[in-house]
Amino acid sequence: MWPFMRQLVAMAATPLVRSKSKMTAAVPSLLKVSDTLHNRRRFTEGEVAAYVGVSGDRNPVHMDDAFARDVGGFEHGRVVHGMLVASLFPALIAAHFPGAVYARQTLKFVAPVYVGEEVLVEVEALTIRATTTTKYIVRFATKCFTGGDGVSSLAIDGEAMVVLPSLHLKVDN
Amino acid sequence: MWPFMRQLVAMAATPLVRSKSKMTAAVPSLLKVSDTLHNRRRFTEGEVAAYVGVSGDRNPVHMDDAFARDVGGFEHGRVVHGMLVASLFPALIAAHFPGAVYARQTLKFVAPVYVGEEVLVEVEALTIRATTTTKYIVRFATKCFTGGDGVSSLAIDGEAMVVLPSLHLKVDN
Repeated sequence: MWPFMRQLVAMAATPLVRSKSKMTAAVPSLLKVSDTLHNRRRFTEGEVAAYVGVSGDRNPVHMDDAFARDVGGFEHGRVVHGMLVASLFPALIAAHFPGAVYARQTLKFVAPVYVGEEVLVEVEALTIRATTTTKYIVRFATKCFTGGDGVSSLAIDGEAMVVLPSLHLKVDN
Repeated sequence: MWPFMRQLVAMAATPLVRSKSKMTAAVPSLLKVSDTLHNRRRFTEGEVAAYVGVSGDRNPVHMDDAFARDVGGFEHGRVVHGMLVASLFPALIAAHFPGAVYARQTLKFVAPVYVGEEVLVEVEALTIRATTTTKYIVRFATKCFTGGDGVSSLAIDGEAMVVLPSLHLKVDN
């Protein structure tokens, strides 16, 4: 399901990052094309409520099971805000590259992420370009899956373009 | 600076929505192409800290003025997470169309939004298409500006594609 050429295994204090296969391997010091970072996360009811407070997004599809089913068409009720799930992409990149600055992001919300449901977030370096200011412009594929290892399905698909101050991978805090 | 054909003036309990010109006008009952919704917002240090907790994005460009300047290149220090600023787009749309479901979003982060800085968020209906399930697919231009009325400049540019359960504009809660 995740047919990547190479997977990084790294321990970060937060968020925890590891390869899907959970195999231990050497940690490369520099990001390379096709390198992939992972994280797993679930958003609790309390976290969604906190996000409602900060973002101001009080759409009842995030707060009311019956409304989410009847109006939103989400059969299992309340869903996590798509932008909150998408925040896992810059969070994962910044955990490994502090000082990363987002330039662009595209997001296709393919399927809902329900409150309390575990998601696998995954970013893969597609292209890496050095700039004249000793920084690096990296294009990442950004994907989020639900359903766990067995029956996982794509929830969010897209790409990010990020300026990294260095290609050195930070593996712990 | 905002040369739109038509601007909606509406009062919503939260967020407050009004036209940039602050002129009072009739409130249309149905969304039409070129209709524009606005909101103003600033993100405090406490809100950014709350978002760090929920998203897990501890990039020091959001938490450390010296790091933000020296590594991130942000001359005024800490910046608001781009995804948090971008959350204002679905928040504004959902305030007027409860049950709105996001399908796609593109985001170009043109310039930083500093912690405490006021932003103007603006969404404009570009196309409206009815579906066979009595819902509507609306493509919005989504923009965010900093600097206030006098010297405002584009901070985030992009487009959203959203499924609305109705074109009826909700003007109060």
